[in-house]
Amino acid sequence: MNHLTAMSELSAAEITELLCEAKAIKEGTVRPDLAGKFVANLFFEPSTRTRFSFEVAEKKLGMNVLSLDGTSTSVQKGESLYDTVRTLESIGADACVIRHSTDEYYKDLTDRVNIPILNAGDGCGQHPTQSLLDLMTIQEEFETFQGLTVSIHGDIKHSRVARSNAEVLTRLGARVLFSGPPQWQDEKNAFGTCVQTDEAIQASDVVMLLRIQNERHQTEADQKGYLEAYGLTAKRAESMKRHAIIMHPAPVNRGVEIDTTLVECEKSRIFKQMENGVYIRMAVLKRALQTNAKRGEAAYVLSH
Amino acid sequence: MNHLTAMSELSAAEITELLCEAKAIKEGTVRPDLAGKFVANLFFEPSTRTRFSFEVAEKKLGMNVLSLDGTSTSVQKGESLYDTVRTLESIGADACVIRHSTDEYYKDLTDRVNIPILNAGDGCGQHPTQSLLDLMTIQEEFETFQGLTVSIHGDIKHSRVARSNAEVLTRLGARVLFSGPPQWQDEKNAFGTCVQTDEAIQASDVVMLLRIQNERHQTEADQKGYLEAYGLTAKRAESMKRHAIIMHPAPVNRGVEIDTTLVECEKSRIFKQMENGVYIRMAVLKRALQTNAKRGEAAYVLSH
Amino acid sequence: MNHLTAMSELSAAEITELLCEAKAIKEGTVRPDLAGKFVANLFFEPSTRTRFSFEVAEKKLGMNVLSLDGTSTSVQKGESLYDTVRTLESIGADACVIRHSTDEYYKDLTDRVNIPILNAGDGCGQHPTQSLLDLMTIQEEFETFQGLTVSIHGDIKHSRVARSNAEVLTRLGARVLFSGPPQWQDEKNAFGTCVQTDEAIQASDVVMLLRIQNERHQTEADQKGYLEAYGLTAKRAESMKRHAIIMHPAPVNRGVEIDTTLVECEKSRIFKQMENGVYIRMAVLKRALQTNAKRGEAAYVLSH
Repeated sequence: MNHLTAMSELSAAEITELLCEAKAIKEGTVRPDLAGKFVANLFFEPSTRTRFSFEVAEKKLGMNVLSLDGTSTSVQKGESLYDTVRTLESIGADACVIRHSTDEYYKDLTDRVNIPILNAGDGCGQHPTQSLLDLMTIQEEFETFQGLTVSIHGDIKHSRVARSNAEVLTRLGARVLFSGPPQWQDEKNAFGTCVQTDEAIQASDVVMLLRIQNERHQTEADQKGYLEAYGLTAKRAESMKRHAIIMHPAPVNRGVEIDTTLVECEKSRIFKQMENGVYIRMAVLKRALQTNAKRGEAAYVLSH
Repeated sequence: MNHLTAMSELSAAEITELLCEAKAIKEGTVRPDLAGKFVANLFFEPSTRTRFSFEVAEKKLGMNVLSLDGTSTSVQKGESLYDTVRTLESIGADACVIRHSTDEYYKDLTDRVNIPILNAGDGCGQHPTQSLLDLMTIQEEFETFQGLTVSIHGDIKHSRVARSNAEVLTRLGARVLFSGPPQWQDEKNAFGTCVQTDEAIQASDVVMLLRIQNERHQTEADQKGYLEAYGLTAKRAESMKRHAIIMHPAPVNRGVEIDTTLVECEKSRIFKQMENGVYIRMAVLKRALQTNAKRGEAAYVLSH
Repeated sequence: MNHLTAMSELSAAEITELLCEAKAIKEGTVRPDLAGKFVANLFFEPSTRTRFSFEVAEKKLGMNVLSLDGTSTSVQKGESLYDTVRTLESIGADACVIRHSTDEYYKDLTDRVNIPILNAGDGCGQHPTQSLLDLMTIQEEFETFQGLTVSIHGDIKHSRVARSNAEVLTRLGARVLFSGPPQWQDEKNAFGTCVQTDEAIQASDVVMLLRIQNERHQTEADQKGYLEAYGLTAKRAESMKRHAIIMHPAPVNRGVEIDTTLVECEKSRIFKQMENGVYIRMAVLKRALQTNAKRGEAAYVLSH
């Protein structure tokens, strides 16, 4: 079963294949078609970009989309996620895309359901399609990851993006730097080195800013002074390498993580990341469902 | 006009025809096509399975689906259900699927609108497509209803499923038993006999469990002790007839109506019920819209 | 870029062209096709009829529809409308339909995005597709606007419909009368004359009632006595000209703006307005996207 749960579950070869596939779809040389298939999008946390990016990807593939937003559903009636997914499988879903506030929610699912689970974000865990679209955007720019320096700025500790990206970038040969407020550094994350903000920005080929996740920390962080202390100011941007690029998973807090004038500047790839996200998700869906026809059927037989 | 409001409105011949049609669709020998038609799904109460089951059925038929969830709508502006349906009819809906908390909400509609109304649950009233999918599941198992014993367990008084099923099963030749807490028995329901839980389970070909509808009773019922007193425990399941099956309209309160280990046991048809629901709804939609083409037009002419 | 923001932005020739196109679509002589295009519907205020009318129009054109309802989105995370639209553009939306509570929200967008913005209502500002469908309904009845008397009844001051319609009807040669409670008259609106309710109704070819927008005024207006004082009673309806018609943008407060028996009377065009709305929106979408292919591409090149 081709689930997609965490970047660490994908081999370097699988990642390369997915990036290659996404590139081919973007260039129009491959036109995958999943017409007639059903996918259920289960978003138990708010999302615009990830949810719509998946939806566009799915519809470009010709799929039928079921959207469940976690507020007007039987989940309110106390149903477990497992029962919800089994229900969707029973009524004909061929795959489930899930965002959920519980870390590793998918561990309760992947061995017990007969359709692929595509993780669109789990708690403070992973966000693999975001990682893949980040990799695609970096690869478009530099062709390789080998020898690149990528700095990740902000709340390293609670960020799904930081967690997914640091591991995979290191594995693919890049050097990862972490930067930001000390209380948000993650001692358990061994895939990067903590440095000062100015130093990180000057040394980087890729400056990857994280969003301050107020809604996740529950209490509104004091955003005053963040930009000057840890964000990408216009002045810091001038110290970037000539060919370095700026990335951000969005939504951007303009004036907090980044000076508002830099969001769409020449170095920024922020909106390009979003564009690439659609192609990545098409490739991920294709991978999940092309082999599923056979394997899913077998699993079905075994489980009945 | 082929509305579907209550099981009692369908003759035995019509029921047989719908079950036969659903079976043919499931087996792939009939492939109905309603491409280009529009259906509006109006769910004024939360629902996952019924809503998505209809949506999958509709999309498999090639229909365009309008989903209205009763929270972000003009209904908030005080518009009557009649005006909402007339609006949807005016903008091009060919049929309306409605779940509403008011008993027999459809009585205000069926004579006054020109599109079929498909009842997806009215208050404590009926839930005819659930009844039909239950019948389909029983028929797949036993081929006939004649001579079967079906016990219904739980809140008989407030359950749409109990109401719809007891009447139609009796009509089709089955014997219906009711069981559960005394305060939930329904003296007005003449289509079944009240017996003790153990007795009902031992005597049944079909053990049909009802969900404890906490959200309907407003106050959370004390679920402690329910399983032992009135639910399907592992021990009670052992006393079932060899060929007897377990059914539940879902969502299941695991450990309340049924021991969690039994939900997907060999005797359980719970997820099969959900699967059959899609074919039933396809058959119902086909019935509603195939004759509508002519009748709807005539009605339109008459009303203008 | 063919945005549609306010009626005052459309020339009389453009209006005529749109009405002509909508008529041809209604009659089936033109069948525009936008298959494969993506449109995002962003409704930050509740709406049934406008939202579904656009959705039916879009699906009849074969478009893929993304629906964002402003409650379960990143907008909650403080993202600006501009960033939301740019995001949707980046992931593949070819057009955005927007309803927003801010007057002229579109002024921040139209020069900065590369996809057409179709205004589905801005604060107390405009609602151009409603105006166009009103014009279409009037034209179907009288063929011309020249010399017609149209009275608009109710909350002239806060109504998007009053604002859009008074200007354009005057421009097209009609005489506009305003009527209703003195505190709701709009001294700044020079496109109509204030008269008493009885006088307005007797003089009109078109009696256009406005909805009392309780949800907009925040406090519930005292609706008692409104019908007798300013609404269309059965008695007043008898004083209407023989060929005069009744219009209302809906949802109707039955018994407030209009006697409930008149809503579907012979003179009423209320549900016909809704029907025409779909054809108008198809024409507007066609206009926005047919020329966009070229212009959008050019804009894209220039902005990168």
